[in-house]
Amino acid sequence: MLEDQDLQAFEENFPFWKQLVPSERQTIIDGTIKFTHPKGSLVHEDRNKCTGLLMVVSGLLRIYIISETGKEITLYRLFDRDVCVLSASCLIRNITFDVHVQAEQETTMLRIATDAYQQVGKTNSSVLDFTNELVSSRFSDVMWVVEQIVFMSFDRRLAMHLLEAAARSGDDSFAITHEAIARDLGTAREVVTRMLSRFQEDNLVRLSRGGITLVNRDGLYALAE
Amino acid sequence: MLEDQDLQAFEENFPFWKQLVPSERQTIIDGTIKFTHPKGSLVHEDRNKCTGLLMVVSGLLRIYIISETGKEITLYRLFDRDVCVLSASCLIRNITFDVHVQAEQETTMLRIATDAYQQVGKTNSSVLDFTNELVSSRFSDVMWVVEQIVFMSFDRRLAMHLLEAAARSGDDSFAITHEAIARDLGTAREVVTRMLSRFQEDNLVRLSRGGITLVNRDGLYALAE
Repeated sequence: MLEDQDLQAFEENFPFWKQLVPSERQTIIDGTIKFTHPKGSLVHEDRNKCTGLLMVVSGLLRIYIISETGKEITLYRLFDRDVCVLSASCLIRNITFDVHVQAEQETTMLRIATDAYQQVGKTNSSVLDFTNELVSSRFSDVMWVVEQIVFMSFDRRLAMHLLEAAARSGDDSFAITHEAIARDLGTAREVVTRMLSRFQEDNLVRLSRGGITLVNRDGLYALAE
Repeated sequence: MLEDQDLQAFEENFPFWKQLVPSERQTIIDGTIKFTHPKGSLVHEDRNKCTGLLMVVSGLLRIYIISETGKEITLYRLFDRDVCVLSASCLIRNITFDVHVQAEQETTMLRIATDAYQQVGKTNSSVLDFTNELVSSRFSDVMWVVEQIVFMSFDRRLAMHLLEAAARSGDDSFAITHEAIARDLGTAREVVTRMLSRFQEDNLVRLSRGGITLVNRDGLYALAE
């Protein structure tokens, strides 16, 4: 059952909401469920299983791809009120790749079933405009990843990544594994461990069991820029 | 001045063409010019300068990104009758990256001005559908590049690349520089040279000045798969 704040989230984050007639809104509402995924669990994994459009109520989603051998790279993260469109990629012609969506923290989401969304899209083109704008945004996010991988040295990427992780945790000291960093950056754990050790020698970070503390933010910024 | 075959190209390659009323078709036609770029020249380079939608009549376009230091990676290539949408990215909200488009052979194109295309898009939503499907296709192309870079070893990527280059040239012996391969694959020339030397030692290819001959296709296929 949706609460008032959920409807408010729709109104505030779906630019098409104001364009919908009451029956269209009801179709979306009837097709929506609210649910919570525990930290670390998989929210979406198979393109053929069209999960639907996901709006983050609270928490954090990580969108990534994974190879046959289990290697990963993170494409982007979604925060409160962000909408995940690739979990509904069955809606979108010519999307031929598959992403995985993981709840990186306990995450509460609104899921709009694809058939309800699609039905309203047939009668209201502003819904399709929204979908297409989301796709373009994610395309831009992925291009940013390509630029990072191809054009940036690994020390620079790692420095940026540590600063982002600190910003997400709200603390210069945060829990993170070398394995998780490797998955984000699409590299091997050993590569991360080697570079973190160099950062520690350069007094940029202090490493501890399962965590990292930034000790020289300015130095990391200089490296990242 | 457009010829009958150009109008036929529109009809055959624009799924929206049949949906347009005569005045809409005329707007597109009036907004279209046909021109030829010499081999190697730049067709589009600046997002702020919206070149327009490009349809390849004959030739070959390479779409790539370039770093501040001049490093490149090829995102995809467009062949006869393919349509380049990112050269008209000003049409598309939320596309925040910039691509370059180079004529890799002498290329004749039809260029539809963005304002003509945009004007018809306002009255006919099938035009927007086409644009959005193109964007999704290119997004999928770029995801394929990401998967290659992150998940595949370099020998495998190079083997695939050589087989593709041979297919494009229609001959197992073709002109190509190590520099051009490096630009395609987003790596350094030295890396390409080193791996090509290894391929030659393994009797997969024979290197010559400015060219490569594939001498063991099966071996390259085995490596690529």
